[in-house]
Amino acid sequence: MVLSFHDSDNKERLYLQVYHYYRELIMSRRLPPGSRMPSLRTCARDLHLSRTTIESAYLQLAADGYIISRAQSGYYVTDIAEQEPAPRQNKKPALPPVRYNFVSSGVDRESFRFDLWQRYLKSALRQNERLLSYGEPQGEADFRQVLSEYVRERRNVTCSPDDIVIGAGVQSLLHILCPLVRDKKTVSFPTSSFIQGSTVFSDYGFEVRYRNKDSGVIYVSPAHMTKWGEIMPVSRRLELLRYAGEHQSLIIEDDFENDFVYLQKPTPSLFSLAGGHGVVYIGSFSRLLLPSIRISFMILPPELSAAYQAKAACYNQTASKAEQIALCQFIRDGHLAAQTRRLKRLYSVKMKQLLAEIQDVFGKSCRMQVGAAGTALALTVSCSTEGESLKKRARAKGLRLEILEEKTGEIILLLSCSAMPAEDFRPACELLKSLL
Amino acid sequence: MVLSFHDSDNKERLYLQVYHYYRELIMSRRLPPGSRMPSLRTCARDLHLSRTTIESAYLQLAADGYIISRAQSGYYVTDIAEQEPAPRQNKKPALPPVRYNFVSSGVDRESFRFDLWQRYLKSALRQNERLLSYGEPQGEADFRQVLSEYVRERRNVTCSPDDIVIGAGVQSLLHILCPLVRDKKTVSFPTSSFIQGSTVFSDYGFEVRYRNKDSGVIYVSPAHMTKWGEIMPVSRRLELLRYAGEHQSLIIEDDFENDFVYLQKPTPSLFSLAGGHGVVYIGSFSRLLLPSIRISFMILPPELSAAYQAKAACYNQTASKAEQIALCQFIRDGHLAAQTRRLKRLYSVKMKQLLAEIQDVFGKSCRMQVGAAGTALALTVSCSTEGESLKKRARAKGLRLEILEEKTGEIILLLSCSAMPAEDFRPACELLKSLL
Repeated sequence: MVLSFHDSDNKERLYLQVYHYYRELIMSRRLPPGSRMPSLRTCARDLHLSRTTIESAYLQLAADGYIISRAQSGYYVTDIAEQEPAPRQNKKPALPPVRYNFVSSGVDRESFRFDLWQRYLKSALRQNERLLSYGEPQGEADFRQVLSEYVRERRNVTCSPDDIVIGAGVQSLLHILCPLVRDKKTVSFPTSSFIQGSTVFSDYGFEVRYRNKDSGVIYVSPAHMTKWGEIMPVSRRLELLRYAGEHQSLIIEDDFENDFVYLQKPTPSLFSLAGGHGVVYIGSFSRLLLPSIRISFMILPPELSAAYQAKAACYNQTASKAEQIALCQFIRDGHLAAQTRRLKRLYSVKMKQLLAEIQDVFGKSCRMQVGAAGTALALTVSCSTEGESLKKRARAKGLRLEILEEKTGEIILLLSCSAMPAEDFRPACELLKSLL
Repeated sequence: MVLSFHDSDNKERLYLQVYHYYRELIMSRRLPPGSRMPSLRTCARDLHLSRTTIESAYLQLAADGYIISRAQSGYYVTDIAEQEPAPRQNKKPALPPVRYNFVSSGVDRESFRFDLWQRYLKSALRQNERLLSYGEPQGEADFRQVLSEYVRERRNVTCSPDDIVIGAGVQSLLHILCPLVRDKKTVSFPTSSFIQGSTVFSDYGFEVRYRNKDSGVIYVSPAHMTKWGEIMPVSRRLELLRYAGEHQSLIIEDDFENDFVYLQKPTPSLFSLAGGHGVVYIGSFSRLLLPSIRISFMILPPELSAAYQAKAACYNQTASKAEQIALCQFIRDGHLAAQTRRLKRLYSVKMKQLLAEIQDVFGKSCRMQVGAAGTALALTVSCSTEGESLKKRARAKGLRLEILEEKTGEIILLLSCSAMPAEDFRPACELLKSLL
């Protein structure tokens, strides 16, 4: 509906148009019950109509029960819309709050030193001059310098800060990368579970495939090839690089969860194995720090770095400048490395506790296998119902589950220990058993 | 170059591969002079080679002058790469720092109450539980609620919080919107200056045009139609809505700078004039708060809102969760409205000061016209050189200028008063005069 209040001089038609306009807003609940109508003055001014016209419309709305006048205060929307079925029913039925979450990839609440992070962010906020201007499109220069040192030390990835692009999460980086490699046309992911990644490629017209090495772009998370956390062996990495090199495919190496794997079984990054050619390296901090800190980075190989530089001014930086400044100093002072060590220790202890609790609750009727990243395990239990129905029944009791695989009479669940407090392991396992 | 260290058992070939690998990194300066080489142990582990092989390679690199050994500390890259021309020359020659910036759209450093914002952000950082999880893909629910009230009150825009999508800047929002309206195929912008917007559309395969109302998507900033800040008159707004409605075109209303215009000459938003159909409303805070706070929002009309909901889980939120929580409470407490009033007052005073200084310096040899938004003016002066050359000469003296138009013997400059401190107006004008 386009309002064309000025079509006619007919005062009566104008007031009816205003009447219908607001009636629709009220009945569609876009002006919800209880909300205040604009004052006559404001409304008259905004619609460029006389106050009298607006007043006539309001009076008619009030007479028909859509709004009600309150002395000294103005007009308010009544609950008339609630007496009819709502026009848009996209709300799902309410579920109880999640009590036990075996699916979350959040971090353990005990692990993160909020006080420390607050101190760094406060110090960043004191840099008034820096915060008064837009951030560098590519990301803050000192932060990129620190990142280049960080990846060199930890991942043997050598790159110039000029080749690093910062963004608010992996999707923001892919939004910059996809247009640069559009001519590759096809992309392969290891599984269908990384929806955020495949959506961006598909939005740019790429054909999305799974585990298909004959694709223009090969997206891999070598430290997390499946939900369960399988690691790509070195022989396979070399083979992949050779194949991709021969076929001119671009590899995107998302180093997701590598930090948890690294100390257990060091694996060279694809980027370093390839000498920095034909591979884009992507790193994130959400699993190390707070999921709510939206900072990721990608390292471009020389050919793509040059193509990006030519377009760099066309993209604004998406990551918070204050958080970049804070994280830069946080890494410089060694806190990221310390936090990684702390998390690894903590997750290793928690995993043992979870294994013990499961053993206790399920006894011999289950099998368990811990994933390579050490934060998730595959639990095989006998189960007579279907996975989806189990998941729903569990959710109705406040338990979130993820199904890894289903066989006749058996089900394999993926249980993550990272975000759940250890004291919840026992009741969560008992609740799970009662549902099987 | 793909390293395949395991191709051969030949120890000599392996060490040479490592040698060539690092030599390239050093000569391309991706391992810059002075940086520390990985330790023999680390390097051997990462490349899955023996320490002896790595050592041979390092010794050869040292013998050839690429690296140097320091006692008790390890190997360091020498400055050998600097003795040859750098392979990648994408660095521009250094310019002096900008002393006077007439182009910046940053905010005035005096206007922003850093202490106040810091207090809100600190309070947001204390919400540990909330920060431990990922943000809602669409943006925090309470923040969307507050925004829906804010736009209803200020812009007569009525919408449900369900129709609001938050993102880290306008580009992040367009990345979500473009795939939803891909079948519109063409987009029109008022000028070619909003590169960030047109880049995203063009990345998604849209044909980008200018001031062409026969386009599938019509992007307008009604309060800022040109760089100078022209405002779209109401009659034109109604005409645009009618035309777009007839042709099933989608209007994107970027309400950029509207807050500065609003109180001078109230104009109804396209979204409210259209009754919320066929118009996407976009709002930002960078001109009101800090440019470094990357928070924007869009309000989707019902048909697009439903299409978005179906895909919402595919997009992660890009805006900082802590900053969303802080801004939510900041608006609730009335500080955004107060900041808007403060800025309007300040810019009105600054504009008068700038006009006076120009008058003083240039006398009768110039003409001035203030833009509608009140933060920029068009200055017409006689000038014998070309605009681009003037701009370059000015930049070399630390003065940033923007050319609005050129005529023979005359040039029209666009001077923004918002970010420049008032005490700089005089020296900046004098410097400008000396260049003409």
